Amino acid sequence: MKVAKFGGTSLASAAQIKKVCEIVKTDESRKVIVVSAPGKRYKEDTKVTDLLIQYAEARLSGQSGEETYARIAERYTEICGELRLPKETAEEIALHLSQSLLYVPGENAGRFMDRVKAAGEDTCAKLVAHYLQSQGKEAVYVNPKEAGLLVTGEPGNAHVLPEAYEKLSLLAEQPGIVVFPGFFGYTPEGELVTFSRGGSDVTGSILAAAIKAELYENFTDVDSVYVVNPHLVHEPKDIREITYREMRELSYSGFSVFHEEALYPAYRAGIPVCIKNTNNPQAPGTMIVSERTVHDNQVAGIASDNGFCSIYVGKYLLNKEIGFGRRLLQILEEEGLSYEHTPSGIDNISVILREKDLTPEIEQRVVERLKRELHAEEILVERGLALVMIVGEGMRRSVGTSARATAALAKARVNLEMINQGSSEVSMMFGVKEVDADRAVIALYEEFFPKAAAPIADIAVSVNA
Amino acid sequence: MKVAKFGGTSLASAAQIKKVCEIVKTDESRKVIVVSAPGKRYKEDTKVTDLLIQYAEARLSGQSGEETYARIAERYTEICGELRLPKETAEEIALHLSQSLLYVPGENAGRFMDRVKAAGEDTCAKLVAHYLQSQGKEAVYVNPKEAGLLVTGEPGNAHVLPEAYEKLSLLAEQPGIVVFPGFFGYTPEGELVTFSRGGSDVTGSILAAAIKAELYENFTDVDSVYVVNPHLVHEPKDIREITYREMRELSYSGFSVFHEEALYPAYRAGIPVCIKNTNNPQAPGTMIVSERTVHDNQVAGIASDNGFCSIYVGKYLLNKEIGFGRRLLQILEEEGLSYEHTPSGIDNISVILREKDLTPEIEQRVVERLKRELHAEEILVERGLALVMIVGEGMRRSVGTSARATAALAKARVNLEMINQGSSEVSMMFGVKEVDADRAVIALYEEFFPKAAAPIADIAVSVNA
Repeated sequence: MKVAKFGGTSLASAAQIKKVCEIVKTDESRKVIVVSAPGKRYKEDTKVTDLLIQYAEARLSGQSGEETYARIAERYTEICGELRLPKETAEEIALHLSQSLLYVPGENAGRFMDRVKAAGEDTCAKLVAHYLQSQGKEAVYVNPKEAGLLVTGEPGNAHVLPEAYEKLSLLAEQPGIVVFPGFFGYTPEGELVTFSRGGSDVTGSILAAAIKAELYENFTDVDSVYVVNPHLVHEPKDIREITYREMRELSYSGFSVFHEEALYPAYRAGIPVCIKNTNNPQAPGTMIVSERTVHDNQVAGIASDNGFCSIYVGKYLLNKEIGFGRRLLQILEEEGLSYEHTPSGIDNISVILREKDLTPEIEQRVVERLKRELHAEEILVERGLALVMIVGEGMRRSVGTSARATAALAKARVNLEMINQGSSEVSMMFGVKEVDADRAVIALYEEFFPKAAAPIADIAVSVNA
Repeated sequence: MKVAKFGGTSLASAAQIKKVCEIVKTDESRKVIVVSAPGKRYKEDTKVTDLLIQYAEARLSGQSGEETYARIAERYTEICGELRLPKETAEEIALHLSQSLLYVPGENAGRFMDRVKAAGEDTCAKLVAHYLQSQGKEAVYVNPKEAGLLVTGEPGNAHVLPEAYEKLSLLAEQPGIVVFPGFFGYTPEGELVTFSRGGSDVTGSILAAAIKAELYENFTDVDSVYVVNPHLVHEPKDIREITYREMRELSYSGFSVFHEEALYPAYRAGIPVCIKNTNNPQAPGTMIVSERTVHDNQVAGIASDNGFCSIYVGKYLLNKEIGFGRRLLQILEEEGLSYEHTPSGIDNISVILREKDLTPEIEQRVVERLKRELHAEEILVERGLALVMIVGEGMRRSVGTSARATAALAKARVNLEMINQGSSEVSMMFGVKEVDADRAVIALYEEFFPKAAAPIADIAVSVNA
């Protein structure tokens, strides 16, 4: 049994939905189909989810949202028409949509927003189930509430509850193909809550774990995951196989292929994940597995992410003060800041955090508290930092990886604000100025993925006086 | 006015004390002389301080310690004889010593130990004052109690109290040369407490700050501080000038020239420190200053220290948990562990600490708590680590320093367990296995201090397939 999740571009139009049905029909073991809301048909198009958010915001601010509503309804009507679904089906779908978007005055804004956003996936799942049936397949739309997809309650940030899995496992016994809307679940009290953006990937992963699928297929619009952002490098090398840990580190820092939290259920259940292309299903895609069988390169990928800043705190004999670091982190926590890394010297410690979290007001308060409560002698805030990461299993244990990386960065005249290596077995992280980030990524790509694939290279260094 | 502190080897014998007096006589501005206890005369000799500790331990365990006492007394008697001090002086010194070592049954063990240890310096200061007088100099022994050297009370770990400085400043008005015993002070309640081992350096620094000396001279048995441990490298380059910050980082990690805490008072008061050789006072020595005027090398020194270990804590989606790092540090704090560094990845964090602090019992308790309280999924303890550090002002801002360092280490086949760079402006730290530490230091020395001094080098790297 397989779980196949289809992303927004795979469902953006009737033509795309036909491809999805072909894929489903080709392989009988594709038992559970998880669908996103229809995405962009062309570059300037608007995703249905974005239209839904626009609609909900209009309603919440007292407007009718009529025009947006019409655009959303039109997307589904058009698809139904092009798929030649019977008139009653199209009407049923239009009715379902309109009911989902009903505005109950006084309803909690977060709950309303989640309900409206979820309508994109939910309506799409109904539509796909009908289309599969019209094509002679035994297919049934299943609602996350009946199926028992229980989640926590924070609007827009649901997390699956452990008790959900038992009931969800019964999906395996359902006759025919299950068509399941992605992106949302229900609290034990019956409230609809969505995952964070892109959360259909999470739904697919949960279902794959629940039914103990042999494979979780994640259909997108690319043939595979690339070792580096294809906007930076022309035709970069693709990744055929990657471990969960590698993928996790890459998706943290700028690899937007797969939702950051989506790997966890599959990883825990040991289910391999395959990233595939709806538009080219013959391509092998990228396999995400526990252990790599292919080791053609010790570096699996290179990623970078902007928008970081650092707070440097210096105090003479700081390292003699037991509890200094802990109290520093406590202050950040009390100010609602989460941090990423804390490189430290002998008499200083720096905290790397997301720049957007450190508003000028919070910065002022934090600096004030560090001076008053920790008697910090020197405090410096630096903004505009990027984290550049090279990821690869076993990389850390290999002599010379850091030498190759730092030499490549030096040659590209990239100054290293920070190097963080030593905790993760699979990554090495460089802090650089944002303006240097792209140059750094390109330099690392050229170093670790040279044009003519060479065997693992030895390094030789010469210093020119 | 200058403060001159003389270390143990500078006072180990009559011949050495004569050199000290010559040095004092040569420069009228040497106002305050701080003395250690007599050190080793030859390699297998025992320092007076070690004999005193032996004696105190014997007494505390119910023995007489007679034999050790005799060896200690003999050291002073012999020096008095060779210096041809009058019989009464020698008797006075012997009496002073015997009174200092009086054992009061029931006395707090820590207080007794401190009192006995301090007798080494105290007796030596009396002796030196007498000898200077016998040489026609106006010199007076001053006791830290009368002088007002007020300290905190933890036995063997005193810290100067801020209120001490005012009274200590009056030493400047004392006629003649002040001979001051290093290593100890008194609590406001009048209890004698010693600094940590090597603390005469601290006394000198405090007095230099108190009297606003133009220079704090620290006389040892080497011509200067070397850029690297001279036991590892034959005739290493010497350091002519170094900043407080550089010296601080170097003395943290294995540079035993100067007590780790001794720089602070001088640094705060902006007093330059000069490390000089009693046996070769003409040599310029090493100046420790606020800002370097000489910039012949961006790297000031290379140091390493053994005896570290790491605790690796891994947990999927750890970086999403606000407060994880803080709670981890809290557990360590509650278990009485202080830590050195905390490199981190996306889903993991490592803590580097001193191996001796992590006893098997504490390790078991910490691991247990990390599992129970933080639900850590993976915990690994690695022992036998060394930290290797390159230190130099401005190094961080220069492109390519890390590339040169990591390339040198890769060439020497040193695997990097950790790289910590980014907080300190003046250092870069590498975690390596202890067995690799010496090789790492030598490789870095050869890279940054090549035989023929070259101008700051550009780096070129070629990768041989």
